[in-house]
Amino acid sequence: MNIGRVVDSIWCTRKEDGLRGLKFLKVKLLNREKECEDGEIVVATDLIGAGIGELVLLTKGSAARRSKGLENSPVDCIIIGIIDAKTDGEEDMDE
Amino acid sequence: MNIGRVVDSIWCTRKEDGLRGLKFLKVKLLNREKECEDGEIVVATDLIGAGIGELVLLTKGSAARRSKGLENSPVDCIIIGIIDAKTDGEEDMDE
Amino acid sequence: MNIGRVVDSIWCTRKEDGLRGLKFLKVKLLNREKECEDGEIVVATDLIGAGIGELVLLTKGSAARRSKGLENSPVDCIIIGIIDAKTDGEEDMDE
Amino acid sequence: MNIGRVVDSIWCTRKEDGLRGLKFLKVKLLNREKECEDGEIVVATDLIGAGIGELVLLTKGSAARRSKGLENSPVDCIIIGIIDAKTDGEEDMDE
Amino acid sequence: MNIGRVVDSIWCTRKEDGLRGLKFLKVKLLNREKECEDGEIVVATDLIGAGIGELVLLTKGSAARRSKGLENSPVDCIIIGIIDAKTDGEEDMDE
Repeated sequence: MNIGRVVDSIWCTRKEDGLRGLKFLKVKLLNREKECEDGEIVVATDLIGAGIGELVLLTKGSAARRSKGLENSPVDCIIIGIIDAKTDGEEDMDE
Repeated sequence: MNIGRVVDSIWCTRKEDGLRGLKFLKVKLLNREKECEDGEIVVATDLIGAGIGELVLLTKGSAARRSKGLENSPVDCIIIGIIDAKTDGEEDMDE
Repeated sequence: MNIGRVVDSIWCTRKEDGLRGLKFLKVKLLNREKECEDGEIVVATDLIGAGIGELVLLTKGSAARRSKGLENSPVDCIIIGIIDAKTDGEEDMDE
Repeated sequence: MNIGRVVDSIWCTRKEDGLRGLKFLKVKLLNREKECEDGEIVVATDLIGAGIGELVLLTKGSAARRSKGLENSPVDCIIIGIIDAKTDGEEDMDE
Repeated sequence: MNIGRVVDSIWCTRKEDGLRGLKFLKVKLLNREKECEDGEIVVATDLIGAGIGELVLLTKGSAARRSKGLENSPVDCIIIGIIDAKTDGEEDMDE
Protein backbone atom coordinates (compact mmCIF):
# COMPACT_ATOMS: atom_id res chain seq x y z
CA MET A 1 0.00 0.00 0.00
CA ASN A 2 1.01 3.65 -0.28
CA ILE A 3 0.48 6.77 1.76
CA GLY A 4 -0.84 9.84 -0.01
CA ARG A 5 -2.47 13.21 0.53
CA VAL A 6 -5.75 14.07 -1.20
CA VAL A 7 -5.18 17.21 -3.27
CA ASP A 8 -8.24 17.57 -5.48
CA SER A 9 -11.27 15.85 -6.98
CA ILE A 10 -11.77 15.16 -10.68
CA TRP A 11 -14.93 14.81 -12.75
CA CYS A 12 -15.64 12.88 -15.92
CA THR A 13 -18.96 13.46 -17.67
CA ARG A 14 -18.08 10.99 -20.43
CA LYS A 15 -16.93 7.74 -18.84
CA GLU A 16 -17.16 3.95 -18.68
CA ASP A 17 -20.56 2.67 -17.50
CA GLY A 18 -18.86 0.80 -14.66
CA LEU A 19 -17.78 4.08 -13.08
CA ARG A 20 -21.21 5.64 -12.56
CA GLY A 21 -21.64 7.00 -9.05
CA LEU A 22 -17.99 6.62 -8.11
CA LYS A 23 -15.97 9.50 -6.64
CA PHE A 24 -12.43 10.11 -7.92
CA LEU A 25 -9.77 11.97 -5.99
CA LYS A 26 -6.33 13.18 -7.07
CA VAL A 27 -3.83 11.96 -4.48
CA LYS A 28 -0.18 12.97 -4.15
CA LEU A 29 1.94 9.98 -3.12
CA LEU A 30 4.13 10.38 -0.04
CA ASN A 31 6.67 7.72 -0.77
CA ARG A 32 9.67 9.36 0.88
CA GLU A 33 10.27 10.15 4.55
CA LYS A 34 9.73 13.84 3.85
CA GLU A 35 6.66 15.12 1.99
CA CYS A 36 7.71 16.26 -1.46
CA GLU A 37 6.19 19.31 -3.16
CA ASP A 38 6.35 17.57 -6.53
CA GLY A 39 5.23 14.06 -5.51
CA GLU A 40 3.69 11.67 -8.03
CA ILE A 41 -0.03 12.18 -8.64
CA VAL A 42 -2.45 9.24 -8.93
CA VAL A 43 -6.25 9.07 -9.06
CA ALA A 44 -8.05 6.90 -6.51
CA THR A 45 -11.68 5.89 -6.03
CA ASP A 46 -12.98 6.81 -2.60
CA LEU A 47 -15.68 4.87 -0.76
CA ILE A 48 -14.95 5.98 2.80
CA GLY A 49 -15.42 9.74 2.59
CA ALA A 50 -11.89 11.13 2.39
CA GLY A 51 -11.60 14.90 2.04
CA ILE A 52 -9.15 17.28 0.45
CA GLY A 53 -5.99 17.57 2.58
CA GLU A 54 -6.40 14.26 4.42
CA LEU A 55 -3.64 11.66 4.66
CA VAL A 56 -4.90 8.37 3.20
CA LEU A 57 -3.87 4.75 2.68
CA LEU A 58 -4.10 3.55 -0.94
CA THR A 59 -4.20 0.05 -2.41
CA LYS A 60 -3.46 -0.68 -6.06
CA GLY A 61 -4.05 -3.32 -8.69
CA SER A 62 -6.51 -6.19 -8.32
CA ALA A 63 -6.66 -5.48 -4.56
CA ALA A 64 -8.70 -2.38 -5.41
CA ARG A 65 -11.55 -4.60 -6.57
CA ARG A 66 -11.77 -6.52 -3.28
CA SER A 67 -13.84 -3.65 -1.93
CA LYS A 68 -17.61 -4.16 -1.76
CA GLY A 69 -19.33 -2.86 -4.90
CA LEU A 70 -16.15 -2.53 -6.96
CA GLU A 71 -15.73 -6.20 -7.96
CA ASN A 72 -16.54 -5.46 -11.60
CA SER A 73 -15.39 -1.87 -11.89
CA PRO A 74 -12.37 -0.96 -14.00
CA VAL A 75 -10.59 0.73 -11.07
CA ASP A 76 -6.96 0.05 -10.16
CA CYS A 77 -6.51 2.27 -7.09
CA ILE A 78 -8.75 2.98 -4.09
CA ILE A 79 -8.54 4.71 -0.73
CA ILE A 80 -8.85 2.08 2.03
CA GLY A 81 -8.16 4.18 5.13
CA ILE A 82 -7.75 7.66 6.59
CA ILE A 83 -4.44 7.69 8.46
CA ASP A 84 -4.68 8.91 12.06
CA ALA A 85 -2.66 11.97 12.92
CA LYS A 86 0.12 11.23 15.40
CA THR A 87 -0.73 12.60 18.84
CA ASP A 88 2.89 13.20 19.87
CA GLY A 89 4.12 15.20 16.92
CA GLU A 90 6.48 13.04 14.90
CA GLU A 91 7.36 10.54 17.65
CA ASP A 92 6.77 6.91 16.86
CA MET A 93 4.06 4.99 18.66
CA ASP A 94 6.04 1.74 18.53
CA GLU A 95 4.15 -1.16 19.88
CA MET B 1 -5.66 5.43 -12.04
CA ASN B 2 -3.58 8.01 -13.90
CA ILE B 3 -4.27 11.24 -15.70
CA GLY B 4 -2.86 11.62 -19.22
CA ARG B 5 -3.16 13.65 -22.38
CA VAL B 6 -3.79 11.92 -25.72
CA VAL B 7 -0.94 12.84 -28.08
CA ASP B 8 -1.29 10.54 -31.08
CA SER B 9 -2.80 7.33 -32.43
CA ILE B 10 -0.85 4.25 -33.45
CA TRP B 11 -1.58 1.54 -36.00
CA CYS B 12 -0.52 -2.08 -36.16
CA THR B 13 -1.28 -4.03 -39.36
CA ARG B 14 0.33 -7.18 -37.96
CA LYS B 15 -1.11 -7.88 -34.52
CA GLU B 16 -2.64 -10.37 -32.10
CA ASP B 17 -6.07 -11.62 -33.17
CA GLY B 18 -7.55 -10.39 -29.89
CA LEU B 19 -6.82 -6.79 -30.86
CA ARG B 20 -8.87 -6.61 -34.05
CA GLY B 21 -11.08 -3.55 -34.18
CA LEU B 22 -9.50 -1.89 -31.16
CA LYS B 23 -8.21 1.69 -31.27
CA PHE B 24 -4.86 2.50 -29.67
CA LEU B 25 -3.81 5.95 -28.51
CA LYS B 26 -0.46 7.25 -27.33
CA VAL B 27 -1.01 9.02 -24.02
CA LYS B 28 1.46 11.20 -22.12
CA LEU B 29 1.12 10.64 -18.37
CA LEU B 30 0.55 13.72 -16.23
CA ASN B 31 1.78 12.37 -12.95
CA ARG B 32 3.15 15.60 -11.51
CA GLU B 33 1.31 18.77 -10.48
CA LYS B 34 2.67 20.57 -13.52
CA GLU B 35 2.40 19.12 -17.03
CA CYS B 36 5.83 17.95 -18.15
CA GLU B 37 7.04 18.32 -21.75
CA ASP B 38 8.86 15.00 -21.50
CA GLY B 39 6.24 12.94 -19.60
CA GLU B 40 6.15 9.15 -19.82
CA ILE B 41 4.35 7.77 -22.88
CA VAL B 42 2.00 4.77 -22.64
CA VAL B 43 -0.42 3.23 -25.14
CA ALA B 44 -4.08 2.84 -24.13
CA THR B 45 -7.08 1.21 -25.76
CA ASP B 46 -9.96 3.64 -26.20
CA LEU B 47 -13.62 2.61 -26.16
CA ILE B 48 -15.19 5.95 -25.32
CA GLY B 49 -14.09 8.14 -28.20
CA ALA B 50 -11.21 10.17 -26.80
CA GLY B 51 -9.51 12.54 -29.24
CA ILE B 52 -6.02 13.94 -29.66
CA GLY B 53 -5.35 16.64 -27.06
CA GLU B 54 -8.00 15.52 -24.56
CA LEU B 55 -7.26 14.93 -20.88
CA VAL B 56 -8.18 11.34 -19.98
CA LEU B 57 -8.39 8.96 -17.02
CA LEU B 58 -6.47 5.69 -17.50
CA THR B 59 -6.70 2.38 -15.68
CA LYS B 60 -3.98 -0.26 -15.82
CA GLY B 61 -3.46 -3.95 -15.26
CA SER B 62 -6.27 -6.48 -14.90
CA ALA B 63 -8.70 -3.58 -14.32
CA ALA B 64 -8.38 -2.80 -18.03
CA ARG B 65 -10.19 -6.04 -18.83
CA ARG B 66 -13.23 -5.22 -16.69
CA SER B 67 -14.52 -3.15 -19.58
CA LYS B 68 -17.25 -4.71 -21.75
CA GLY B 69 -15.77 -6.50 -24.73
CA LEU B 70 -12.20 -6.54 -23.44
CA GLU B 71 -12.48 -9.50 -21.03
CA ASN B 72 -10.28 -11.69 -23.20
CA SER B 73 -8.11 -9.10 -24.91
CA PRO B 74 -4.42 -8.82 -24.12
CA VAL B 75 -4.69 -5.15 -23.13
CA ASP B 76 -3.20 -3.73 -19.93
CA CYS B 77 -4.24 -0.06 -20.16
CA ILE B 78 -7.51 1.61 -21.23
CA ILE B 79 -9.09 5.05 -21.21
CA ILE B 80 -12.05 5.01 -18.81
CA GLY B 81 -13.04 8.70 -18.80
CA ILE B 82 -12.59 12.10 -20.40
CA ILE B 83 -11.72 14.52 -17.61
CA ASP B 84 -13.93 17.62 -17.48
CA ALA B 85 -12.18 20.93 -17.90
CA LYS B 86 -12.34 23.09 -14.78
CA THR B 87 -14.77 25.92 -15.23
CA ASP B 88 -12.92 28.31 -12.91
CA GLY B 89 -9.45 28.10 -14.39
CA GLU B 90 -7.24 26.19 -11.99
CA GLU B 91 -9.36 26.71 -8.86
CA ASP B 92 -10.45 23.58 -7.03
CA MET B 93 -14.09 22.57 -6.99
CA ASP B 94 -13.77 21.04 -3.50
CA GLU B 95 -16.90 19.36 -2.32
CA MET C 1 9.94 -9.75 -3.74
CA ASN C 2 11.67 -6.79 -2.10
CA ILE C 3 13.82 -6.26 0.95
CA GLY C 4 12.84 -3.49 3.34
CA ARG C 5 13.34 -2.17 6.85
CA VAL C 6 10.36 -1.54 9.11
CA VAL C 7 10.43 2.11 10.15
CA ASP C 8 7.08 2.78 11.81
CA SER C 9 3.51 1.63 12.28
CA ILE C 10 0.44 3.47 11.04
CA TRP C 11 -3.12 3.55 12.32
CA CYS C 12 -6.41 4.14 10.57
CA THR C 13 -9.53 4.58 12.68
CA ARG C 14 -11.72 5.08 9.59
CA LYS C 15 -11.05 2.26 7.14
CA GLU C 16 -12.42 -0.44 4.86
CA ASP C 17 -14.26 -3.22 6.71
CA GLY C 18 -11.90 -5.79 5.19
CA LEU C 19 -8.97 -4.31 7.08
CA ARG C 20 -10.27 -4.80 10.63
CA GLY C 21 -7.71 -6.39 12.90
CA LEU C 22 -4.84 -6.01 10.44
CA LYS C 23 -1.54 -4.39 11.42
CA PHE C 24 0.09 -1.95 8.99
CA LEU C 25 3.78 -1.10 9.00
CA LYS C 26 5.69 1.58 7.11
CA VAL C 27 8.62 -0.11 5.40
CA LYS C 28 11.57 1.58 3.66
CA LEU C 29 12.57 -0.36 0.56
CA LEU C 30 16.23 -1.43 0.30
CA ASN C 31 16.44 -1.84 -3.44
CA ARG C 32 20.07 -0.83 -3.89
CA GLU C 33 23.21 -2.55 -2.65
CA LYS C 34 23.70 0.17 -0.07
CA GLU C 35 20.93 1.22 2.30
CA CYS C 36 19.65 4.63 1.27
CA GLU C 37 18.59 7.27 3.81
CA ASP C 38 15.81 8.42 1.51
CA GLY C 39 14.53 5.04 0.27
CA GLU C 40 10.99 4.61 -1.03
CA ILE C 41 8.34 4.10 1.66
CA VAL C 42 5.55 1.54 1.28
CA VAL C 43 2.94 0.22 3.73
CA ALA C 44 2.74 -3.53 4.32
CA THR C 45 0.37 -5.74 6.28
CA ASP C 46 2.19 -7.88 8.84
CA LEU C 47 1.00 -11.30 9.98
CA ILE C 48 4.28 -12.69 11.31
CA GLY C 49 5.16 -10.22 14.05
CA ALA C 50 7.79 -7.97 12.49
CA GLY C 51 9.07 -5.15 14.67
CA ILE C 52 10.42 -1.67 14.07
CA GLY C 53 14.01 -1.85 12.76
CA GLU C 54 13.81 -5.40 11.43
CA LEU C 55 14.83 -6.35 7.90
CA VAL C 56 11.88 -7.98 6.13
CA LEU C 57 10.91 -9.68 2.88
CA LEU C 58 7.88 -8.14 1.13
CA THR C 59 5.61 -9.51 -1.57
CA LYS C 60 3.34 -7.30 -3.69
CA GLY C 61 0.26 -7.50 -5.84
CA SER C 62 -2.09 -10.48 -5.93
CA ALA C 63 0.62 -12.57 -4.19
CA ALA C 64 -0.18 -10.64 -1.02
CA ARG C 65 -3.59 -12.30 -0.89
CA ARG C 66 -2.19 -15.85 -0.99
CA SER C 67 -1.61 -15.56 2.74
CA LYS C 68 -4.09 -17.29 5.03
CA GLY C 69 -6.85 -14.90 6.11
CA LEU C 70 -6.11 -12.24 3.51
CA GLU C 71 -7.81 -13.85 0.51
CA ASN C 72 -10.53 -11.22 0.42
CA SER C 73 -8.73 -8.24 1.91
CA PRO C 74 -7.90 -5.21 -0.22
CA VAL C 75 -4.16 -5.44 0.58
CA ASP C 76 -1.43 -5.27 -2.08
CA CYS C 77 1.73 -5.70 0.03
CA ILE C 78 2.56 -7.99 2.96
CA ILE C 79 5.58 -9.03 5.00
CA ILE C 80 6.31 -12.71 4.32
CA GLY C 81 9.61 -13.16 6.19
CA ILE C 82 12.09 -11.69 8.66
CA ILE C 83 15.50 -11.79 7.00
CA ASP C 84 18.22 -13.48 9.08
CA ALA C 85 21.20 -11.35 9.97
CA LYS C 86 24.42 -12.58 8.35
CA THR C 87 26.66 -14.27 10.87
CA ASP C 88 29.92 -13.36 9.14
CA GLY C 89 29.45 -9.63 8.77
CA GLU C 90 28.83 -8.85 5.12
CA GLU C 91 30.41 -11.99 3.67
CA ASP C 92 28.23 -14.08 1.38
CA MET C 93 27.08 -17.50 2.45
CA ASP C 94 27.20 -18.85 -1.11
CA GLU C 95 25.91 -22.34 -1.42
CA MET D 1 0.75 -0.97 -23.23
CA ASN D 2 4.24 0.26 -24.13
CA ILE D 3 6.13 0.97 -27.31
CA GLY D 4 9.57 -0.61 -27.70
CA ARG D 5 12.24 -1.45 -30.23
CA VAL D 6 13.52 -5.03 -30.54
CA VAL D 7 17.27 -4.96 -29.94
CA ASP D 8 18.31 -8.60 -29.58
CA SER D 9 17.20 -12.15 -28.89
CA ILE D 10 18.12 -14.18 -25.82
CA TRP D 11 18.47 -17.91 -25.30
CA CYS D 12 18.02 -20.05 -22.22
CA THR D 13 19.07 -23.71 -22.41
CA ARG D 14 18.08 -24.31 -18.79
CA LYS D 15 14.57 -23.01 -18.23
CA GLU D 16 11.08 -23.60 -16.87
CA ASP D 17 9.17 -26.37 -18.67
CA GLY D 18 6.39 -23.90 -19.49
CA LEU D 19 8.74 -21.90 -21.69
CA ARG D 20 9.67 -24.62 -24.18
CA GLY D 21 9.36 -23.44 -27.77
CA LEU D 22 8.88 -19.79 -26.87
CA LYS D 23 11.00 -17.04 -28.41
CA PHE D 24 12.35 -14.26 -26.19
CA LEU D 25 13.38 -10.84 -27.42
CA LYS D 26 15.18 -8.01 -25.66
CA VAL D 27 13.16 -4.85 -26.20
CA LYS D 28 14.19 -1.28 -25.39
CA LEU D 29 11.22 0.71 -24.09
CA LEU D 30 10.43 3.97 -25.87
CA ASN D 31 8.53 5.69 -23.12
CA ARG D 32 9.52 9.27 -23.92
CA GLU D 33 8.72 11.40 -26.96
CA LYS D 34 12.30 11.06 -28.15
CA GLU D 35 14.02 7.68 -28.46
CA CYS D 36 16.61 7.36 -25.71
CA GLU D 37 19.97 5.65 -26.25
CA ASP D 38 19.84 4.25 -22.73
CA GLY D 39 16.17 3.23 -22.54
CA GLU D 40 14.96 0.54 -20.14
CA ILE D 41 15.43 -3.04 -21.38
CA VAL D 42 12.74 -5.69 -20.89
CA VAL D 43 12.35 -9.21 -22.28
CA ALA D 44 9.16 -10.09 -24.18
CA THR D 45 7.79 -13.31 -25.63
CA ASP D 46 7.05 -13.00 -29.34
CA LEU D 47 4.31 -14.96 -31.13
CA ILE D 48 3.86 -12.73 -34.16
CA GLY D 49 7.27 -12.80 -35.77
CA ALA D 50 8.88 -9.51 -34.74
CA GLY D 51 12.44 -8.96 -35.91
CA ILE D 52 15.46 -7.07 -34.61
CA GLY D 53 15.02 -3.33 -35.17
CA GLU D 54 11.22 -3.36 -35.43
CA LEU D 55 8.98 -1.06 -33.39
CA VAL D 56 6.56 -3.16 -31.34
CA LEU D 57 3.60 -2.86 -28.99
CA LEU D 58 4.05 -4.67 -25.65
CA THR D 59 1.52 -5.74 -23.04
CA LYS D 60 2.49 -6.63 -19.47
CA GLY D 61 1.19 -8.53 -16.47
CA SER D 62 -1.71 -10.95 -16.58
CA ALA D 63 -2.71 -9.49 -19.98
CA ALA D 64 0.30 -11.32 -21.44
CA ARG D 65 -1.41 -14.64 -20.74
CA ARG D 66 -4.56 -13.75 -22.70
CA SER D 67 -2.72 -14.74 -25.83
CA LYS D 68 -3.53 -18.16 -27.32
CA GLY D 69 -1.13 -20.80 -26.06
CA LEU D 70 0.27 -18.73 -23.20
CA GLU D 71 -2.56 -19.20 -20.68
CA ASN D 72 -0.40 -21.30 -18.37
CA SER D 73 3.05 -19.96 -19.17
CA PRO D 74 5.00 -17.95 -16.61
CA VAL D 75 5.38 -14.95 -18.94
CA ASP D 76 4.64 -11.36 -17.89
CA CYS D 77 5.37 -9.45 -21.12
CA ILE D 78 4.56 -10.20 -24.78
CA ILE D 79 4.68 -8.47 -28.14
CA ILE D 80 1.11 -7.96 -29.40
CA GLY D 81 1.71 -5.85 -32.52
CA ILE D 82 4.24 -4.48 -34.97
CA ILE D 83 3.71 -0.72 -35.14
CA ASP D 84 3.25 0.63 -38.67
CA ALA D 85 5.78 3.17 -39.84
CA LYS D 86 4.25 6.59 -40.44
CA THR D 87 3.93 7.29 -44.13
CA ASP D 88 4.33 11.06 -43.80
CA GLY D 89 7.52 11.21 -41.81
CA GLU D 90 6.69 12.26 -38.27
CA GLU D 91 3.35 13.92 -39.04
CA ASP D 92 0.34 12.69 -37.11
CA MET D 93 -2.40 10.78 -38.84
CA ASP D 94 -5.06 12.21 -36.50
CA GLU D 95 -8.48 10.83 -37.10
CA MET E 1 10.39 -10.33 -18.09
CA ASN E 2 13.66 -8.87 -16.83
CA ILE E 3 17.29 -9.84 -17.01
CA GLY E 4 19.26 -9.93 -13.76
CA ARG E 5 22.43 -11.22 -12.16
CA VAL E 6 22.26 -13.35 -9.00
CA VAL E 7 24.29 -11.58 -6.32
CA ASP E 8 23.49 -13.42 -3.09
CA SER E 9 21.09 -15.68 -1.27
CA ILE E 10 18.91 -14.66 1.67
CA TRP E 11 17.52 -16.67 4.56
CA CYS E 12 14.42 -16.22 6.65
CA THR E 13 13.97 -18.41 9.74
CA ARG E 14 10.65 -16.74 10.60
CA LYS E 15 8.44 -16.75 7.53
CA GLU E 16 5.05 -17.48 5.97
CA ASP E 17 4.13 -21.18 5.96
CA GLY E 18 3.71 -21.08 2.18
CA LEU E 19 7.42 -20.35 1.76
CA ARG E 20 8.82 -23.49 3.43
CA GLY E 21 11.45 -25.18 1.32
CA LEU E 22 11.75 -22.33 -1.16
CA LYS E 23 15.12 -20.78 -2.04
CA PHE E 24 15.40 -17.00 -2.30
CA LEU E 25 18.07 -15.19 -4.25
CA LYS E 26 18.99 -11.51 -4.38
CA VAL E 27 19.12 -10.49 -8.03
CA LYS E 28 20.44 -7.22 -9.46
CA LEU E 29 18.30 -6.09 -12.40
CA LEU E 30 20.12 -5.39 -15.67
CA ASN E 31 17.58 -3.10 -17.25
CA ARG E 32 19.98 -0.90 -19.22
CA GLU E 33 22.28 -1.79 -22.11
CA LYS E 34 25.28 -1.55 -19.83
CA GLU E 35 25.45 -3.38 -16.51
CA CYS E 36 25.13 -0.87 -13.71
CA GLU E 37 27.09 -1.18 -10.44
CA ASP E 38 24.14 0.19 -8.51
CA GLY E 39 21.29 -1.66 -10.25
CA GLU E 40 17.96 -2.27 -8.53
CA ILE E 41 17.89 -5.30 -6.21
CA VAL E 42 14.93 -7.69 -6.11
CA VAL E 43 14.44 -11.07 -4.44
CA ALA E 44 13.39 -14.04 -6.59
CA THR E 45 12.40 -17.61 -5.83
CA ASP E 46 14.56 -20.12 -7.70
CA LEU E 47 13.35 -23.56 -8.79
CA ILE E 48 15.88 -24.26 -11.53
CA GLY E 49 19.17 -24.16 -9.66
CA ALA E 50 20.61 -20.73 -10.46
CA GLY E 51 23.91 -19.89 -8.79
CA ILE E 52 25.61 -16.71 -7.60
CA GLY E 53 26.98 -14.75 -10.57
CA GLU E 54 24.69 -16.28 -13.20
CA LEU E 55 22.63 -14.19 -15.61
CA VAL E 56 18.95 -15.08 -15.21
CA LEU E 57 15.51 -14.38 -16.68
CA LEU E 58 12.91 -13.21 -14.15
CA THR E 59 9.14 -13.08 -14.32
CA LYS E 60 7.02 -10.97 -11.97
CA GLY E 61 3.50 -10.72 -10.65
CA SER E 62 0.86 -13.41 -11.03
CA ALA E 63 3.04 -15.04 -13.74
CA ALA E 64 5.37 -16.16 -10.93
CA ARG E 65 2.67 -18.49 -9.67
CA ARG E 66 2.25 -20.31 -12.99
CA SER E 67 5.26 -22.40 -12.04
CA LYS E 68 4.59 -25.95 -10.78
CA GLY E 69 4.37 -26.02 -6.99
CA LEU E 70 4.04 -22.25 -6.55
CA GLU E 71 0.33 -21.89 -7.38
CA ASN E 72 -0.56 -20.99 -3.80
CA SER E 73 2.66 -19.42 -2.62
CA PRO E 74 2.85 -15.71 -1.83
CA VAL E 75 5.71 -15.12 -4.29
CA ASP E 76 5.72 -12.32 -6.86
CA CYS E 77 9.05 -12.93 -8.64
CA ILE E 78 10.78 -16.13 -9.83
CA ILE E 79 13.74 -17.17 -11.95
CA ILE E 80 12.46 -18.90 -15.09
CA GLY E 81 15.70 -19.35 -17.07
CA ILE E 82 19.48 -19.18 -17.02
CA ILE E 83 20.53 -16.98 -19.94
CA ASP E 84 23.10 -18.57 -22.26
CA ALA E 85 26.39 -16.75 -22.60
CA LYS E 86 26.96 -15.38 -26.12
CA THR E 87 29.56 -17.44 -27.95
CA ASP E 88 30.82 -14.59 -30.12
CA GLY E 89 31.58 -12.00 -27.49
CA GLU E 90 28.94 -9.29 -27.68
CA GLU E 91 27.86 -9.92 -31.26
CA ASP E 92 24.18 -10.56 -31.86
CA MET E 93 22.98 -13.96 -32.96
CA ASP E 94 20.11 -12.49 -35.00
CA GLU E 95 17.86 -15.06 -36.51
